Amino acid sequence: MSNTLGKLFSITIFGESHGDCIGVVIDGCPAGLHVTVDDIQAEIDKRKAALRALATSRKEDDKIEFFSGMMGEYTTGAPICLVIWNKNIDSSDYVARKNILRPGHADFTANTKYGGFNDYRGGGSFSGRITAGFVMAGAIALKLLEHIGIEVMAHSTQIGQIHAKTTTNYKTIRECVSSNEAGCADLKAAPKMEEAIELARLEGDSLGGVIEGIALNIPVGFGEPTFDTLEGELAKALFSIPAVKGVEFGAGFKSAGLKGSQNNDSFVINNGTITSSTNNAGGVLGGISSGMPIVARVAIKPTPSILKEQPTVNIVTGKNTSIKVHGRHDPCIVPRAVPIVESMMAITLCDLALRAQIMPRVIK
Amino acid sequence: MSNTLGKLFSITIFGESHGDCIGVVIDGCPAGLHVTVDDIQAEIDKRKAALRALATSRKEDDKIEFFSGMMGEYTTGAPICLVIWNKNIDSSDYVARKNILRPGHADFTANTKYGGFNDYRGGGSFSGRITAGFVMAGAIALKLLEHIGIEVMAHSTQIGQIHAKTTTNYKTIRECVSSNEAGCADLKAAPKMEEAIELARLEGDSLGGVIEGIALNIPVGFGEPTFDTLEGELAKALFSIPAVKGVEFGAGFKSAGLKGSQNNDSFVINNGTITSSTNNAGGVLGGISSGMPIVARVAIKPTPSILKEQPTVNIVTGKNTSIKVHGRHDPCIVPRAVPIVESMMAITLCDLALRAQIMPRVIK
Amino acid sequence: MSNTLGKLFSITIFGESHGDCIGVVIDGCPAGLHVTVDDIQAEIDKRKAALRALATSRKEDDKIEFFSGMMGEYTTGAPICLVIWNKNIDSSDYVARKNILRPGHADFTANTKYGGFNDYRGGGSFSGRITAGFVMAGAIALKLLEHIGIEVMAHSTQIGQIHAKTTTNYKTIRECVSSNEAGCADLKAAPKMEEAIELARLEGDSLGGVIEGIALNIPVGFGEPTFDTLEGELAKALFSIPAVKGVEFGAGFKSAGLKGSQNNDSFVINNGTITSSTNNAGGVLGGISSGMPIVARVAIKPTPSILKEQPTVNIVTGKNTSIKVHGRHDPCIVPRAVPIVESMMAITLCDLALRAQIMPRVIK
Amino acid sequence: MSNTLGKLFSITIFGESHGDCIGVVIDGCPAGLHVTVDDIQAEIDKRKAALRALATSRKEDDKIEFFSGMMGEYTTGAPICLVIWNKNIDSSDYVARKNILRPGHADFTANTKYGGFNDYRGGGSFSGRITAGFVMAGAIALKLLEHIGIEVMAHSTQIGQIHAKTTTNYKTIRECVSSNEAGCADLKAAPKMEEAIELARLEGDSLGGVIEGIALNIPVGFGEPTFDTLEGELAKALFSIPAVKGVEFGAGFKSAGLKGSQNNDSFVINNGTITSSTNNAGGVLGGISSGMPIVARVAIKPTPSILKEQPTVNIVTGKNTSIKVHGRHDPCIVPRAVPIVESMMAITLCDLALRAQIMPRVIK
Repeated sequence: MSNTLGKLFSITIFGESHGDCIGVVIDGCPAGLHVTVDDIQAEIDKRKAALRALATSRKEDDKIEFFSGMMGEYTTGAPICLVIWNKNIDSSDYVARKNILRPGHADFTANTKYGGFNDYRGGGSFSGRITAGFVMAGAIALKLLEHIGIEVMAHSTQIGQIHAKTTTNYKTIRECVSSNEAGCADLKAAPKMEEAIELARLEGDSLGGVIEGIALNIPVGFGEPTFDTLEGELAKALFSIPAVKGVEFGAGFKSAGLKGSQNNDSFVINNGTITSSTNNAGGVLGGISSGMPIVARVAIKPTPSILKEQPTVNIVTGKNTSIKVHGRHDPCIVPRAVPIVESMMAITLCDLALRAQIMPRVIK
Repeated sequence: MSNTLGKLFSITIFGESHGDCIGVVIDGCPAGLHVTVDDIQAEIDKRKAALRALATSRKEDDKIEFFSGMMGEYTTGAPICLVIWNKNIDSSDYVARKNILRPGHADFTANTKYGGFNDYRGGGSFSGRITAGFVMAGAIALKLLEHIGIEVMAHSTQIGQIHAKTTTNYKTIRECVSSNEAGCADLKAAPKMEEAIELARLEGDSLGGVIEGIALNIPVGFGEPTFDTLEGELAKALFSIPAVKGVEFGAGFKSAGLKGSQNNDSFVINNGTITSSTNNAGGVLGGISSGMPIVARVAIKPTPSILKEQPTVNIVTGKNTSIKVHGRHDPCIVPRAVPIVESMMAITLCDLALRAQIMPRVIK
Repeated sequence: MSNTLGKLFSITIFGESHGDCIGVVIDGCPAGLHVTVDDIQAEIDKRKAALRALATSRKEDDKIEFFSGMMGEYTTGAPICLVIWNKNIDSSDYVARKNILRPGHADFTANTKYGGFNDYRGGGSFSGRITAGFVMAGAIALKLLEHIGIEVMAHSTQIGQIHAKTTTNYKTIRECVSSNEAGCADLKAAPKMEEAIELARLEGDSLGGVIEGIALNIPVGFGEPTFDTLEGELAKALFSIPAVKGVEFGAGFKSAGLKGSQNNDSFVINNGTITSSTNNAGGVLGGISSGMPIVARVAIKPTPSILKEQPTVNIVTGKNTSIKVHGRHDPCIVPRAVPIVESMMAITLCDLALRAQIMPRVIK
Repeated sequence: MSNTLGKLFSITIFGESHGDCIGVVIDGCPAGLHVTVDDIQAEIDKRKAALRALATSRKEDDKIEFFSGMMGEYTTGAPICLVIWNKNIDSSDYVARKNILRPGHADFTANTKYGGFNDYRGGGSFSGRITAGFVMAGAIALKLLEHIGIEVMAHSTQIGQIHAKTTTNYKTIRECVSSNEAGCADLKAAPKMEEAIELARLEGDSLGGVIEGIALNIPVGFGEPTFDTLEGELAKALFSIPAVKGVEFGAGFKSAGLKGSQNNDSFVINNGTITSSTNNAGGVLGGISSGMPIVARVAIKPTPSILKEQPTVNIVTGKNTSIKVHGRHDPCIVPRAVPIVESMMAITLCDLALRAQIMPRVIK
């Protein structure tokens, strides 16, 4: 019951998987930003593009619409409402099995918390579909960051058991991530990831993975410690993406096994600019951006909807039973989540940029 | 510049490493809670106890004081201010090297963000010392949770290269964690961890590690999705602990490599209670507690203060230089961070318990 | 740039006078509330009804639509989006005079704050039209309060120079307020108010007035001092209604001239219930509801849009000039604002009721 | 249970009338502000000065102390904790009559809301004494505003039945307000106010009044509509001052009786600056500062503690009884509240200045 995120640049989400629409209200967006329907549509299409071949997924011919906040092609400073209408909805499957709890889903917790009144059709407001709202807001955030020279990108670094080669070659990442349906910048690993996803699909099973999000050209000063640290704010935003079960920065969990002398990034100065030779800190020191690239890594669990039979419970009869989850499900949502990670990072950075006065309130 | 955490149960931190004191204001605490100086002191002493032998650390003979919010031994509903005075402070080292940026510390980012006005002595408000405030507030939060039957515990599961054996035997964890100076419940791994820390100390180096935090007897309903998910709120709170670089729940990053059929926790019903046989979800589904134990794991980087020489920069002269960081530093803060992880989990759970009306506003 | 109000029960507004629509997202609404399109429409129609004869105003044939948050006729716990489409919009007048600042309007401040990018057509997001969103949210809030036995009502107590007789006969207020087009419960004053409005219309001038909002059957405990007092939260919400320039509670400004012995409300106990014989406090002591009716009074300035010629400035040429404001304006918005005052009170009370755990999170 | 105010510049209050101390934590204060103990003390002494002769009041020999947030005489960007110790406390009177509800006080509402656990001694956290925390924070806020050229002042415009002459001569207000013990800038009204207070004291009764707060040299742009309007944010802050029962801006309640042609402030341009000849709007249009002086007026009820006998209830026996309130009470708190009004205005303006990027995050 808390669908607003952000202090100065904030987004409010509404809509359900099988309701009328998915929408988002973006509040606190600086006035004067040039943005078009096509700018937003392009980001939404990225989310879709990842699915072309691999997924048996729901056909989402999503067209975005602006409801408010714009005059011509410029933001006015008023809240921007963006909406995508839901189409081709068939809830019959969900109605039929509404009392059978799907393992790994929010069915049980939502039913209990909301006294059985929750919209269970397609997962309702717990569906991955709501991230269309994240991406619409993210498209605005990415445009704002562009204005202050910041670039955000993301790529799949692991799908199932396939790991991409680690790289800090951001040019390669930028160029390669869209070239394949795994959203992977390592062109050797990418086809193996695609294969693994296809195999999981054939088995009626699913895969998870890891996405790395990166923000470049970040000035020092993002993050408001003690509590609104750059890591904490990013993590909170990233954990709102359904299926995320871990978030780390820089060396992350690997740093737990390093010595201080290995993990510390030494400072160097070049032409008056202080930087560091390594980036184990992932661009954050003391909860504040250090000027190095911000590097976040996000663990995504395998899609809980699988065709294989799973033991579970009928919440009405109170009996043990089992379920096979049919429907329009991706065997792996990782590729599709790449632009969502970009979006949540961008949204969080806009909020922190306004708080730190790194971003102006009017774009000129 | 954001030192308040929480929506209904909130804490506000103040104080610096070399200032007068470390303090915390706890707001929104239900009235009628019985709590004594000794209750708080016991938690603070836990934080200290971890250090007895291993650490060359600062002598912290910390005595807590209540400034407000109590009448006799009961909370009144008014904000509770708790303070520890700083003693035996010698800032001469910091004054001498104030322009030399310590790698891995907030010196550079704080200096830049606050225009050079930040208190650099002992790291100022970026010091690990501020977590004394977290623990004082955590002591109150733990007492509140006790009233609704919830227990929070934490233990070291990794220090440097030494890994504890995975266990879900909470009784063992509860009993063993304080028996050794590694804060580790695996009594075979614990002495190896202690050795590793001692070795790092002798080398003038440092170690990181992993702490697992657990909350037991959790009812369904903690967490306010879409954005204030249980994972997101816990992660934000945990990332405010200095040196935390990763947070994961349940199977966490491991789930990225599992198949859906392996990772999904099947539901079972026993005597009318729905539970699951495994807990890869770490007690959270759809951002809401599922009734299974909440399991969070936190990656802690090695202490950045090391005696070894490290290249760095003098921020005033703008010249490359080097530094050896002398002073009262732990070669490994992981054992000491165990009660801090408990505290931040407890604080977050109290806030979510009030929001979900799982905790009453008056304790009777 | 802050279009979200409320901590647990929160509303987010979007839309403009001459844009596509007016909308509101209601977040934190308890699940299980029965509510229909007609429930909302009835409140919107109240807002309109006030205008029948008196106003030359814009024809608002507003039909509300639910976009999310409902399953059948019950709230699900997910955010509820409600929208009214704008129709019959002619912005030509506004385009023609867009650089001429209308005195008493937000034209100057919005233009300056938003760098000239603000939507100036019909006042954009500063239009009284946005209060349709307040009323849609208010309709939900009123239904929620009904469930815990609370009633909210409002009536005009002053229009221009005509004052209604003071009364605490809530039955009369409830029955009489809709019987006339002044929204006034004093049936002697009402026709004089109607006349005064008609006279102002004929003169090309406008009138202000005072609205009294009342909440009945309030339990003790609404309000979270020190800062989120019942008065403070209500006042903040009421000042978001365009044209409100003052808010007072109980004896309000009159209490400034009373002695303590006159102003204090003596406590009495009857059948175990503590109450007071007078209600100069307006139902609030120490920022917390006392159980007596909450009485708030709101000063509304005369409509700034008048046909009379007024000196002003052309913001582009930088020259002094003058303006006569033609268009679909009410000579007095007071009657129309009656349900808006009710709405903002109800919205605020729902938020405080959830915070104080006076209202449950699931309606059964 | 909500003791933090403000979004970017925020204050958190703690302490009770008869507890150890009154304190405040100021968070979000820009780094680099020069401020001394004497700067804060001077504001606290203003609050006291008003009392010299008129009041029989508690002797407050308050000395302020900094606990955090400073290095030398400059703010560091970390939270600033300021404290005043309570001295000479005698709670015996309160203990003796603890079950007898004082009319006009929070005794009843606090007792009920906090289940009888509230600190009743001297009103606990509901005492006017907590405003010492407002004034300490206000002193910092006033210094910050000075840096961007803004001045805040306040003066008594009514005490009991004595009204000061209306003036917009700010130079006179600035010079005269401290010259008398009524805090009144009208030197003819001031002695009559003093007399009225003395008379009330002799009668064992009390007086209320009105304070006008003014902010000068305000740029356009303070205020974040729709909900965080300049009026709404100021009103919320002002209603947290105990005894405030009304807040109005500019013509306020008087505007309800004016015609649009009388109430509208015409714009004029002089040397490129747009201003208005009158200021009925009190410096706010559309919830945003217009550049004209911000003028707020605050109604203060008569002190509820009076020596006269009043009917009331014993909350434990449940019997009707009566009370005469002895103790160290001012017969009129209006003069003493003048610097408190200044403080709450200044605190609110700092928050809005940071949000609108009118104030920098580092003072140079």
